[in-house]
Amino acid sequence: MKAALKNMLALTAILFTNLGSADNLSDNLWRKLELDEMVLLTLPHGKVVIELAPQFAPKHVAQFTRLTKKGFYNGTKFYRVIDGFVAQAGPEDGSAKDKSVPLLAMEAELQVDKAWSFTPVQKHDLFAAQTGFKDSFAIALQAQEERAPRKAWLTHCPGTIAMARNNEADSATSHFYFVIGQAPRYLDGIMTIFGRVVYGMQHIQAIQRTEVVSGDDVIAPRDFTQIISMQLMSDVAKAEQIHLEIENTASAAFSQRLAKRRNRNNAFFFKKPPPVLDVCQIPIRSRVIN
Amino acid sequence: MKAALKNMLALTAILFTNLGSADNLSDNLWRKLELDEMVLLTLPHGKVVIELAPQFAPKHVAQFTRLTKKGFYNGTKFYRVIDGFVAQAGPEDGSAKDKSVPLLAMEAELQVDKAWSFTPVQKHDLFAAQTGFKDSFAIALQAQEERAPRKAWLTHCPGTIAMARNNEADSATSHFYFVIGQAPRYLDGIMTIFGRVVYGMQHIQAIQRTEVVSGDDVIAPRDFTQIISMQLMSDVAKAEQIHLEIENTASAAFSQRLAKRRNRNNAFFFKKPPPVLDVCQIPIRSRVIN
Repeated sequence: MKAALKNMLALTAILFTNLGSADNLSDNLWRKLELDEMVLLTLPHGKVVIELAPQFAPKHVAQFTRLTKKGFYNGTKFYRVIDGFVAQAGPEDGSAKDKSVPLLAMEAELQVDKAWSFTPVQKHDLFAAQTGFKDSFAIALQAQEERAPRKAWLTHCPGTIAMARNNEADSATSHFYFVIGQAPRYLDGIMTIFGRVVYGMQHIQAIQRTEVVSGDDVIAPRDFTQIISMQLMSDVAKAEQIHLEIENTASAAFSQRLAKRRNRNNAFFFKKPPPVLDVCQIPIRSRVIN
Repeated sequence: MKAALKNMLALTAILFTNLGSADNLSDNLWRKLELDEMVLLTLPHGKVVIELAPQFAPKHVAQFTRLTKKGFYNGTKFYRVIDGFVAQAGPEDGSAKDKSVPLLAMEAELQVDKAWSFTPVQKHDLFAAQTGFKDSFAIALQAQEERAPRKAWLTHCPGTIAMARNNEADSATSHFYFVIGQAPRYLDGIMTIFGRVVYGMQHIQAIQRTEVVSGDDVIAPRDFTQIISMQLMSDVAKAEQIHLEIENTASAAFSQRLAKRRNRNNAFFFKKPPPVLDVCQIPIRSRVIN
């Protein structure tokens, strides 16, 4: 019996239905990320690359980039890490460093007109009238009324990075979190997402949890995961740079992949699932092109 | 500015709205797990506890328990680990050990009658007419027709454990996977889930990924994460046993927690999210009672 191998092939086919024919797809399936669109986060146990989203959150990206360029995050710790939820980092609370950073106004939603293009994924998603992709980011949108503009927003899929805040809408500064569990979509539109992990998500998942099950051993702050460095990729020494391409979600090939994923025509599906797609459960592939 | 602390308090409140008053809740909020309902998975980097679900998948639990008791999984490896999807383990493909295990018939769905009780969570979920909890497991159900029985099934939330299989429905044996990313709900009803992680999920998340981004360094099989041991908790030496209680999802207190989570009356929500709940985004708390 070749159960293991067959399982591997069959289940791999679920995720990568289109992988075998990737070479035949049009060139625009892949999109190169520029060095100044990427941030390299070096953790003690591995390297992570974040793609920034200035088109959605320009002021948050500008502030995060400015802080990153001056080494602000180097040596800070992930002080609030809850399995299945978020990994949050930032400077020591109340420190001069913490207080030095100006407040940011919320940038969680865009007004878009009817001409705004995106790749549709799902109507009547549990949390929104419409979901889709824009520039390889998972988005959600209000229902489209005749001629009226509508709101669109980045959604809290696993791997997104967003600014933490106080209770007030416009109270974010420098503390940020990665989503590390089932998408907390209830935070959509009320937190500013400004990027997503495009490489090394497994290292984000391996960050030391700081909250433990009741009755279990407490984790001491000295054991919290530290940020060795946070650098704009264009500031990284050439030999250490990671060059990446990511799937272009505006390509015809990507839309075909979505259709295949929805229809599940693989023999593994002896019974077909509902023809729906959770926008947060569609991997957007990256590849290293060093 | 107390941004970090405030953020911590505010965001913690999101997850644990009801925690402050937990002591006032009725005793039946917590349910003790019996030692023979739990499996202790020891990994090189930490301990994990699985709650079995014989009420949903009796034959799968019987086979998994029998294999576990004879040390079948000790020394086997997680050979197929895809970030954001699954961590799959089992014996070496085609080995005598692999071939020694009988096939299992699918146990992915139950027929339930109108009297079958569960804790409702959400109607018109993207993948099912109804979601809810039964015995602390996330479930989904068909729409209820007048007097007719309906199907119910365990859903692929993060932390569930299910048997892998070949293309044929009734082809599972001993290979299993944990869900480690956004719930792959399209596998609901066509894979047999037979338990869920109730302790140490962060160690499942830290299992070495075996599939890498195209162009990145390949992971050698010698670096795959090994199972040190898999034991029924009742077979573990007394001093090493982990005793756990978990939230009783049939309690009134739990239903109140669901209502609070849906309504988001916390000051953090300056704008309210839609009053809906993703059944896979509701943490079921555990506590150590050693």
